[in-house]
Amino acid sequence: MPDKLKIALLGCGVVGTQVARLLTEQADDLASRVGTPLELVGIAVRDLSVEREGVDPALLTTDAEALVAGADVVVEVMGGIEPPRALILRAIEHGASVVTANKALLAQDGPTLYAAADAAGVDLYFEAAVAGAIPIVRPVRESLAGDTVRRVLGIVNGTTNYVLDRMATDGLDLDQAVKEAQALGYAEADPTADVEGFDAAAKAAILASLAFHTRVSIDDVQREGITSLTADDVAWAAGTGHVIKLLAIAERNTGDDGTEGIQVRVHPALVPADHPLAGVRGAFNAVFIEAEAAGELMFYGRGAGGAPTASAVLGDVVSVARHRVLGGRGPVESSYADLPVLPAEAARTRYQVRLEVADQPGVLAQVAAVLAEHGVSIEAVRQTPAPDEHVARLLITTHAASERALAGTVEAIAGLDVVRAVVSVLRVEGA
Amino acid sequence: MPDKLKIALLGCGVVGTQVARLLTEQADDLASRVGTPLELVGIAVRDLSVEREGVDPALLTTDAEALVAGADVVVEVMGGIEPPRALILRAIEHGASVVTANKALLAQDGPTLYAAADAAGVDLYFEAAVAGAIPIVRPVRESLAGDTVRRVLGIVNGTTNYVLDRMATDGLDLDQAVKEAQALGYAEADPTADVEGFDAAAKAAILASLAFHTRVSIDDVQREGITSLTADDVAWAAGTGHVIKLLAIAERNTGDDGTEGIQVRVHPALVPADHPLAGVRGAFNAVFIEAEAAGELMFYGRGAGGAPTASAVLGDVVSVARHRVLGGRGPVESSYADLPVLPAEAARTRYQVRLEVADQPGVLAQVAAVLAEHGVSIEAVRQTPAPDEHVARLLITTHAASERALAGTVEAIAGLDVVRAVVSVLRVEGA
Repeated sequence: MPDKLKIALLGCGVVGTQVARLLTEQADDLASRVGTPLELVGIAVRDLSVEREGVDPALLTTDAEALVAGADVVVEVMGGIEPPRALILRAIEHGASVVTANKALLAQDGPTLYAAADAAGVDLYFEAAVAGAIPIVRPVRESLAGDTVRRVLGIVNGTTNYVLDRMATDGLDLDQAVKEAQALGYAEADPTADVEGFDAAAKAAILASLAFHTRVSIDDVQREGITSLTADDVAWAAGTGHVIKLLAIAERNTGDDGTEGIQVRVHPALVPADHPLAGVRGAFNAVFIEAEAAGELMFYGRGAGGAPTASAVLGDVVSVARHRVLGGRGPVESSYADLPVLPAEAARTRYQVRLEVADQPGVLAQVAAVLAEHGVSIEAVRQTPAPDEHVARLLITTHAASERALAGTVEAIAGLDVVRAVVSVLRVEGA
Repeated sequence: MPDKLKIALLGCGVVGTQVARLLTEQADDLASRVGTPLELVGIAVRDLSVEREGVDPALLTTDAEALVAGADVVVEVMGGIEPPRALILRAIEHGASVVTANKALLAQDGPTLYAAADAAGVDLYFEAAVAGAIPIVRPVRESLAGDTVRRVLGIVNGTTNYVLDRMATDGLDLDQAVKEAQALGYAEADPTADVEGFDAAAKAAILASLAFHTRVSIDDVQREGITSLTADDVAWAAGTGHVIKLLAIAERNTGDDGTEGIQVRVHPALVPADHPLAGVRGAFNAVFIEAEAAGELMFYGRGAGGAPTASAVLGDVVSVARHRVLGGRGPVESSYADLPVLPAEAARTRYQVRLEVADQPGVLAQVAAVLAEHGVSIEAVRQTPAPDEHVARLLITTHAASERALAGTVEAIAGLDVVRAVVSVLRVEGA
């Protein structure tokens, strides 16, 4: 048994400072849980002159390459593709186990890292890469390893959930809610990665890979952000018993030609108010899973922030450190199922289509005829007066239809003389 | 690498038949995930003549001892203390890894089993023993291994949650709701283990052991069932913005003499309607955890039933089988913290006390004086008329008070001339 394990930390931002703090404050507990002390031997940073509260300046170094070469466990919380990618590969080459929170890197180039770790016989753990503090990577790749996952629906971006929650509860418009999120530190000065769904797409790719034992990269993820949503959309959703959430969705599906495969997508969706995901408020995250034997599961908690993310990182550090003490390794990449990623157009969901139409007899018949022609079945129609007396509002809820069929339908409806505007087209999920 | 692993199944009831089915139906997937095929070599039962749908009769045997002696992995889903205890110890002695769903056995004599497994260098996994399909054992003992758990609040008994949900939604009284649960197969013919909280207490002991790295047996758990609850209690709870849930609670606490310790208890409690646990409906389970770095987490899903429980069992089977293929072992018992279990009287919670009092001036002043004498601070008081014009109803919500102080207070209040009855005393949790 080693008399101690050397931990190298790459990055000392919001998460890194909390990892350093917890490694120090909980040193005795961690030593008892691992079976040997964990010693933080250095922290690689870009700029030594930045003040970092509670971090011993003697630990800081700008020579990340030298640091990883001498460590037993390397913790990467820098973010971005390079230098993390090169440093992780170097750490693995030197025989270190790696813990990373880097969703972007894993979603872009995970298989390279998994293969390197496997070849070197070391662990690569990444619980913190998806949904922050929420244990979701370990449950999906270990607890559900004896089950068949059908679908994953996740609220995995706290920024957009906060924004949508504020729009729903106080009627803010998108810009106001984003500004408020920025003021509170939930959103970056440039909120693109969050509001356009890039962050959620990376997490969707990772979850899909684990759930379906298939390689899924961020390029396989169909992505749509929340920027086209209006306060009016959110209010209408509430009026029909729904809330709008930005969902990361990964599901087993069948293509047009009968091919069994999977689909992975990120988009805003109407979620019924009595669905467990509908109650996920503020910046919280949650992942809802449907598995054949387990049925419905949900995992809920803080998806971001220094201390919550550090909790997930430290859990991984204890796991990989135990393996170094007691022998053995954690699960490796499982991609044996190798399911095809089906095209976006094959996705089948229910839709809510909102129209502004001429307020005259026969309009509904014309619209319904177009839906019928395209094989899209109507579940419900609701007509309400608009402020302008010559205009009526029409809300159509469809049964499950393919994205392709729906797109054709909407185009044809928009071309009708009696239709003034297609106000919104939103998917309904979790019903 | 072994060319296959022999799985022995002990018990073929509701859970066992599902384990057998999934081992067969998912054989190819399981082989890919483990790295070698899993072969179900036999199922020990008491009575060979019982018809078991979908189970190959050639697998059945009444000689459980011989079966475990020849297996690589033994799955115990018989329930009860003996013979499971003796069979698990025999399996360990023969070098088999063990997966069990037996909460009663673990809560009564877990340390004996953990020590035997540790000495033999084999795994003992038990995800299915707490909250059925919900991954909770693995997250608590692995994902949160780098954090400090403050409190666990669990709805871990689906029968009582169903009963309380029916009382809340349709105003049923307890007996009606229990009869309905029995008719639906959620409750046993003798519902004692559920409604008196014994089942939840076993799970509370297991969760507390894991969360606090301390041995906790079912004898350490303060226990109170739901049998004294009335439809009126449930309606009053709703009127004050709460739902009543049977909670398994494990928390760090400080005793009267300043001793740091833990408390583990099962009792009905008022949960605020906006708390994530309040939304757990029907027979579902959920475990809510407060940890220092992670913050609030919740795990939700089906807590019982054949297929959901089998999902958790199979996840464990894959984990222990991987260890046999790739080397290594899962986590062993962690009881290094060895925290004292504090006496029940030291628990501090908020309370709601309902009284029937004489409808005359000065009553509230007398009651408030008694509370003040006992050092119990009042958060709110609500007075409402009763059907009898000489009687008023008084609802007192206290700030956090010790159980000892509250008990003395209630006794003194009951002794006041103006107090006709102490209708109920309920704890408030999760606020």
